Amino acid sequence: VIFASDNWAPASDRVIAALSEAARRGGPAYGGDQLTQRVEARFSELFERPVAVFPVATGTAANALAVSVYAKPGGIVFAHAEAHIADDEAGATEFLAALKVVGLAGGDGKFSPDTLQAALDAVPEGATHRGQPAVVSLTNITESGTVYTRPEMAAIVSVAKSRGCAVHVDGARFANAVAALDCAPADLTWRAGIDVLSFGGTKNGCIAADAVVFFRPEEAREFPFVRQRAGHGFSKHWFAAAQFDAYLKDGHWLDLASRANASAARLAEAIRRSGKGRARLAVEPAANEVFAVLAKDVDARLRAAGAVYYPWQFEFMPLVGRPGSDEVLVRLVTSFATTKAEIDLFGKVLDG
Amino acid sequence: VIFASDNWAPASDRVIAALSEAARRGGPAYGGDQLTQRVEARFSELFERPVAVFPVATGTAANALAVSVYAKPGGIVFAHAEAHIADDEAGATEFLAALKVVGLAGGDGKFSPDTLQAALDAVPEGATHRGQPAVVSLTNITESGTVYTRPEMAAIVSVAKSRGCAVHVDGARFANAVAALDCAPADLTWRAGIDVLSFGGTKNGCIAADAVVFFRPEEAREFPFVRQRAGHGFSKHWFAAAQFDAYLKDGHWLDLASRANASAARLAEAIRRSGKGRARLAVEPAANEVFAVLAKDVDARLRAAGAVYYPWQFEFMPLVGRPGSDEVLVRLVTSFATTKAEIDLFGKVLDG
Amino acid sequence: VIFASDNWAPASDRVIAALSEAARRGGPAYGGDQLTQRVEARFSELFERPVAVFPVATGTAANALAVSVYAKPGGIVFAHAEAHIADDEAGATEFLAALKVVGLAGGDGKFSPDTLQAALDAVPEGATHRGQPAVVSLTNITESGTVYTRPEMAAIVSVAKSRGCAVHVDGARFANAVAALDCAPADLTWRAGIDVLSFGGTKNGCIAADAVVFFRPEEAREFPFVRQRAGHGFSKHWFAAAQFDAYLKDGHWLDLASRANASAARLAEAIRRSGKGRARLAVEPAANEVFAVLAKDVDARLRAAGAVYYPWQFEFMPLVGRPGSDEVLVRLVTSFATTKAEIDLFGKVLDG
Amino acid sequence: VIFASDNWAPASDRVIAALSEAARRGGPAYGGDQLTQRVEARFSELFERPVAVFPVATGTAANALAVSVYAKPGGIVFAHAEAHIADDEAGATEFLAALKVVGLAGGDGKFSPDTLQAALDAVPEGATHRGQPAVVSLTNITESGTVYTRPEMAAIVSVAKSRGCAVHVDGARFANAVAALDCAPADLTWRAGIDVLSFGGTKNGCIAADAVVFFRPEEAREFPFVRQRAGHGFSKHWFAAAQFDAYLKDGHWLDLASRANASAARLAEAIRRSGKGRARLAVEPAANEVFAVLAKDVDARLRAAGAVYYPWQFEFMPLVGRPGSDEVLVRLVTSFATTKAEIDLFGKVLDG
Repeated sequence: VIFASDNWAPASDRVIAALSEAARRGGPAYGGDQLTQRVEARFSELFERPVAVFPVATGTAANALAVSVYAKPGGIVFAHAEAHIADDEAGATEFLAALKVVGLAGGDGKFSPDTLQAALDAVPEGATHRGQPAVVSLTNITESGTVYTRPEMAAIVSVAKSRGCAVHVDGARFANAVAALDCAPADLTWRAGIDVLSFGGTKNGCIAADAVVFFRPEEAREFPFVRQRAGHGFSKHWFAAAQFDAYLKDGHWLDLASRANASAARLAEAIRRSGKGRARLAVEPAANEVFAVLAKDVDARLRAAGAVYYPWQFEFMPLVGRPGSDEVLVRLVTSFATTKAEIDLFGKVLDG
Repeated sequence: VIFASDNWAPASDRVIAALSEAARRGGPAYGGDQLTQRVEARFSELFERPVAVFPVATGTAANALAVSVYAKPGGIVFAHAEAHIADDEAGATEFLAALKVVGLAGGDGKFSPDTLQAALDAVPEGATHRGQPAVVSLTNITESGTVYTRPEMAAIVSVAKSRGCAVHVDGARFANAVAALDCAPADLTWRAGIDVLSFGGTKNGCIAADAVVFFRPEEAREFPFVRQRAGHGFSKHWFAAAQFDAYLKDGHWLDLASRANASAARLAEAIRRSGKGRARLAVEPAANEVFAVLAKDVDARLRAAGAVYYPWQFEFMPLVGRPGSDEVLVRLVTSFATTKAEIDLFGKVLDG
Repeated sequence: VIFASDNWAPASDRVIAALSEAARRGGPAYGGDQLTQRVEARFSELFERPVAVFPVATGTAANALAVSVYAKPGGIVFAHAEAHIADDEAGATEFLAALKVVGLAGGDGKFSPDTLQAALDAVPEGATHRGQPAVVSLTNITESGTVYTRPEMAAIVSVAKSRGCAVHVDGARFANAVAALDCAPADLTWRAGIDVLSFGGTKNGCIAADAVVFFRPEEAREFPFVRQRAGHGFSKHWFAAAQFDAYLKDGHWLDLASRANASAARLAEAIRRSGKGRARLAVEPAANEVFAVLAKDVDARLRAAGAVYYPWQFEFMPLVGRPGSDEVLVRLVTSFATTKAEIDLFGKVLDG
Repeated sequence: VIFASDNWAPASDRVIAALSEAARRGGPAYGGDQLTQRVEARFSELFERPVAVFPVATGTAANALAVSVYAKPGGIVFAHAEAHIADDEAGATEFLAALKVVGLAGGDGKFSPDTLQAALDAVPEGATHRGQPAVVSLTNITESGTVYTRPEMAAIVSVAKSRGCAVHVDGARFANAVAALDCAPADLTWRAGIDVLSFGGTKNGCIAADAVVFFRPEEAREFPFVRQRAGHGFSKHWFAAAQFDAYLKDGHWLDLASRANASAARLAEAIRRSGKGRARLAVEPAANEVFAVLAKDVDARLRAAGAVYYPWQFEFMPLVGRPGSDEVLVRLVTSFATTKAEIDLFGKVLDG
């Protein structure tokens, strides 16, 4: 009964098989192989336009290197204060992109266009000391398990573009967002004005598969050098390509994400059902993350029964969710591999 | 008949099997898994002392992050002018470690203790403008396919330590060096005074397995942060651990390297045999790289027959090897997967 | 009637004379001159212990390079959200020290020990993703014109040291703080546990004189290289030394600061006196900065009369000071060169 | 009898007077003053086209920040191996611009267009591992005291531009080059294809006056941020402007340089005259640096008589100049303040 994180999950059988097959074959190094070419084509097809795509080792690398392309001297990245890029990447963006990250306030993992506007106003044009806006970064699904819709994104993009900012999406769980909204990947990216995406597969059935996707390939012209000097240019590049090939083929990635989302919905339902005094939802879940407030004795019972999950803290607590002194806020993450049995067991222990 | 590079090779069956098994299982993220623990133990056993080991995505990352631990303001890394760290990593060390790389001269991929001493003398203590010596980096096997012996290393280490430099070994092909010298891994590292090693598995049967190995674990105390902020902290850390686990088990890594070295020896013998006017060795090969001077018509014949390899240039050409106007210098790299049939075919075409 | 900033002020006659004399003499470059030696002795005498002192070009350089000495990979500098280092230096600390700056909340330009403790708790030991605490930076006088006393500093230092943080003081207006508290410079620095100080002279009668002062000289061992590679090693080092020599001699620096503080007190008194509906103090001034809320018509009248000053915004507004819709918050800064006549004129126009 | 360096010299009276006057006046901070405006106009007039000019604290800062504008990921700066940017700035360019510096060979402080071409060829387009050419940097006058003529520069520029490199001139002694060639400043810069110049005044009569001059002002659009985040934005910006104002007015800068050059010519003549066995010129001097080979006993005699100068080493020794075992190579630098009496005394001691 593991709800610690989707990166505790195994890989999908198809991904494992594809990687094994590629590994038995080998091939030209540094992306000269055919799998890499095929994956590039798959990404362009998926996003309904030519894109440039570059696998790197981790989501942290994807985020920091993606925004580095839009860096300016004295540049600032605006992101939600709880976003990974602001808070969970050990300063990777400051280090790899020499950008300052300014965290924005907002409940449910989202910041509003007005909040962004106010932050931009605090860095007026020509105020050399303040630095200059460079990038706005959104996380979708958010760190609160909610989802930005296309109109929500477009409203933020509009504010961002008014000051010449590029807009980046941290899509470590992009698949879960697309599955949740049942829309085209293009709708949540370039059609909403997004310039660059961190496309994550690792949390959703891959092994180590994170890529930077540029929606205007000409902006990626120097990215091979960006990737190489950061030590992220795999020599056996087919290693990443094989995973993405299987992941994207026949909508496998969305099947996996849909399963994870469905498990989260089932888990949320168990929590809702459990009734007053036992557990309640802190945020209305939209994808595969469930934030719940548990009575401390329930929490103890669950852990005793072998459930694994993390206690949580929000900097911008949703009002409904604030835990009392005998309660604890926890994060429960489902993956494609979460079973109905696990959830049922969790629900049973929950109900006491 | 592929002699392009050992990073064109497939992975070994054992490595593939181990990775597949780990991938089907999943487990705690960021190194909390059991495979990671086991691999750490394997490395300590291999080197006959406690070591700290950190997988990263590539050999470039291993080199740049390893030396960054010993960085000083205005610091200099001394390395052979043809070393990867100096010439083939797109400025990763300048970028990730803010160190200047000073390239040293020397035939056969090696620089002498005297050459190092002269370079250190050109940066005297207190000469603030010149910067300060920080690291000496050796590549073993070298970029010329030769091998540093323990006494050769110790002589360089002695000069390096006299100015307080840490000594790093780029061991992208460390296995081939150990196999060539038939010695203990410790002999080519800490027993010779080496502080930190880039231990490469990718070119010798792994998929993406490069690690930084610190021989005094206390020097690695901050390395988890170094790795994380550079985007090299794998969430599914078992991905690297599984490869190393199979790679190190039962001496598999040395078996693979020995096979590659034996193939190179066979290839060298074919070249020696081919006779005057056809081909000759540019450097006496010690491991799995063969540098040869081919007559241009022989080169054309080999390529027509499907042989794949790279033309080469040395900055510090071995005297014996300088190609004439109707000749071409080439690099031929063997791997564990190179077959006798490939070499025999190469030899046959060579002989015309 | 210029209250724009103390960096609009001229230099003091003594400083000008000293610089001119040194400039007519010349001398050994890069700090080999006698003035530099004398200034080092003056600083050690001033602080009642041996210190290491390094002039750099600006206060921004002093701050960023000072904290860089205590940088760690993934390191964080904690500072008030309105501190220069957080908000007014175009990302210098992120750039020159590769540190993330985390802004802390607090009225009157100060953060409390509890606020710091909470921020440190959010980056627990071993939480590699979060990075690691490296430095706490205080500004004295603060950006709100208030002053940290020695006990206030000591309380913050105690929290900082409990997590191994170095503590830095941005003393762009250090003279004004010392003059305001009428204490020994040592009391506001190393006796309160401070490790390193940005000592500013530029705003208080010098021309371009900012220095980094280390209270444990051994921590400065590599600073000559830090300074040089950042382009802050003056060849005609006597240029900075001459200024500091005159500035520190016979307490000149404190005389200048006392004059500036006295002018601010007089200005504050004029504002208090002006009466309801005209102007009021937003913060109780302690040194040479006065933050006032002016009625908009009074503001217009003052500007029409030639007064020069900046409108202001606080992120953490003191409750007493929040301007109404027909009011404006402004900053008025006095310098040693501010005259009684200027203040009286300001007061007269204020009173209408 | 000081020939140690021109940065040991005093400042010129006009520069001192101008700075003193500005310092007594004060004025708007950060370049809002009238002197700054006037200096910008003077530079544009001097170079016969609109230029963008930014004072910084040192020549090292000027070089590193100038080239940083043209930086690319994995970018390389090509410069003579003995150039300051390569060898004497403690890694400032690696640090501030994240560029690798590749040193080129060449006698007399110059590299040839062919040498540059060969270095560019070693970094072919698309060779991601090698990085990419970004900037070519020339020093004029060179570190050997020789001068690049306009045609020499144009030949190098042509090679540089063929690979898309910007071309920078380190003009720490630019005045001496212009005086030596008696040409228009434009001839040695943009008319020869130069993009950006480090314009030095510090060694030629100023106190601390180094500026970056962009010949296409639109390329400097982000330079205010570049300067600020490196801590090089003087608050009392008139401090630099006042120096340049006096320096450029009525050709003062060229008068000063001509005096220095004439003194060097006189010194060289004394050396030529001194005769065999005593001293000889190592390089034919073109401006204000004289490299001489002295008999060791002559060297001892000169030092005993109070002469101050540095022993020297060239990496690429001019053939004529190689010192014998009883000789020493020295550098003698003259400044505007060098007197005939000093030279005559030097000559007299030389002649024994």
